[in-house]
This record gives sequence, C-alpha cells and structure tokens, in this order.
Amino acid sequence: MKIKIITVGKTRKNHWQLAEQDYLKRIQRYCELQFIFTKEASQETLRNDALVKETEAIEIRKKIEAGEFVIALDQRGKTLSSEELAEFLQDKTVQGRSRFCFIIGGPLGLSPEICQQADLVLALSKMTLPHELAKIVLLEQIYRAFTIMHGEKYHK
Amino acid sequence: MKIKIITVGKTRKNHWQLAEQDYLKRIQRYCELQFIFTKEASQETLRNDALVKETEAIEIRKKIEAGEFVIALDQRGKTLSSEELAEFLQDKTVQGRSRFCFIIGGPLGLSPEICQQADLVLALSKMTLPHELAKIVLLEQIYRAFTIMHGEKYHK
Repeated sequence: MKIKIITVGKTRKNHWQLAEQDYLKRIQRYCELQFIFTKEASQETLRNDALVKETEAIEIRKKIEAGEFVIALDQRGKTLSSEELAEFLQDKTVQGRSRFCFIIGGPLGLSPEICQQADLVLALSKMTLPHELAKIVLLEQIYRAFTIMHGEKYHK
Repeated sequence: MKIKIITVGKTRKNHWQLAEQDYLKRIQRYCELQFIFTKEASQETLRNDALVKETEAIEIRKKIEAGEFVIALDQRGKTLSSEELAEFLQDKTVQGRSRFCFIIGGPLGLSPEICQQADLVLALSKMTLPHELAKIVLLEQIYRAFTIMHGEKYHK
C-alpha cells in the first residue's frame, strides 16, 4: 500500500515536525508513506477566501495522480471511528485500490471542488483543527488503522 | 477563569511535552491553566480492565475540587464544534462557573463512574486518540475557544 499526504503549507513548528517524523517511522513499517507540501496562497495579496482556496487547489491537483483513491479532509465530511476507517481502507484494498491520497487544506480549508472530486470527504473531528494538528491526528489514525488491520495490540 | 486538566499518566514523548508547553504559554494569556498528572495503574499487575480504570478513578477523584465544573473526555460523549464549545464555556461563565476541570483517562479510558459523575462528557472525535494526543487536541480547542470568545482572528 502507498499513502500520500498532501498538505497546503509546510509544517513550521518544531514539535509538529518531530511528531510527524515519529509517526513516519512507525507507519513505514506497514506501507510507503509520502508527505507532499503544496504552496500556500497569500490571503493578503488575494483578499478573497474563495480565490485563496481555488489558487491552492490548482497546486493540489498537480500532485494527485491517476488511480489514487482521494480522501479530502474537511470537518463537514463523514465521521468514522478508528475501527471504521481501518475497515474502510481494508475494503478498498481488497477491491484492488492500493494508492491512497489524503489532502489537508491550508488555514482556510479546501476548495469545494477538491471535496466534490474526492472519493471520500472525511472529518477527523467536528471541531476545527489547524492543518498541522489535523495531519498529526490523521497520522495517528493511519498508524492505528494498520495496527487494527494486523490485529496488533495498541494502546487505546 | 481557572482551567485544570487531569491526565492519567505523564506525557512521555518530547514532542508532546513541547506542544503542551507551547499551548500552555498561549492559553495563560487568557486564564490560569494547570496540568495535573495522576498515577497510571498497572495493567500487568491488575489484569482486569475495569479494575485498572477503577484504581485510576480513585486517584482522579482526589484531584477534583468542590465547585469545579467537571468535563470528562470520552469518545462516546457529546460532539461539539469549536464554536459550540466556546459558547458552552461562555454560558457556564455567565452562570457563575469559573473553575473547569477536564479529565483525560489513561490507555484504557475513564471508568464509567467518572463519566456518570461528570457535568459533561465531551468527545473530541469519534476516532480513538491516545491520551497524549487527546490532551493536545483539547488544548487547541481551549485556546481556540478563548480566541472565539474574545472575537480574535485565528487561523481555521
């Protein structure tokens, strides 16, 4: 299985970078995991939220490859438990899908088009998470999904 | 306002400690924030999940003070958006409550009694979060709630 995570804007704070690297190490035991950062559009220059999101969407689309199962993260999306997410990924794999592309928006979130075109819109929480923390929560869920799929004991 | 966060077990990983300290600094501008760690019970010695949770509950109860508004975190609890949580805390403050005590369980979660006795059982996500990450997500939501209550601009 190959998993790609696209985020708009780099991870700036050191503690988030360290957390990402920790998860990367743990997840790479189970699959090929790739982090891709796309360019954040300037809210100050564009002065229009929709335009910012559309500009960011152009860069995101360049990074999505044909055949990938695309999962856009948005708090208005579907809420799943960790077990349901593991089952979902397992089912897709059984159906022959092996490449998953998760997309996390920038400070303003994802454009509606990115969400409409995605194969799944997933909400990690009803609460708003900054994109750096959303990535950490997603990495935790991916790691947890693998331990569930492999029937491994993992702390709740 | 005074906010206390009780967690079962210390924060071990360095990146979580750094993230906690970062949020502590940001939140202390708005309120008095205190972290309390209670003792984790040994699953190996007790060999019974309910007993582990009950043992941990005894230590938790010692740290809850009279008059505190107690919020237990559990994934089966109420889901609120960040705005709804801010409004909830604001309403309680208007009603004269100024001390809030959030409780995060250990690896097995909180005992049913702690949840039953709490004033609110709150779910940060339908997904399972390890207690260290749950604390980070909670801190983000507390910080976000203050920026919402103060009408400050904060990145979505």
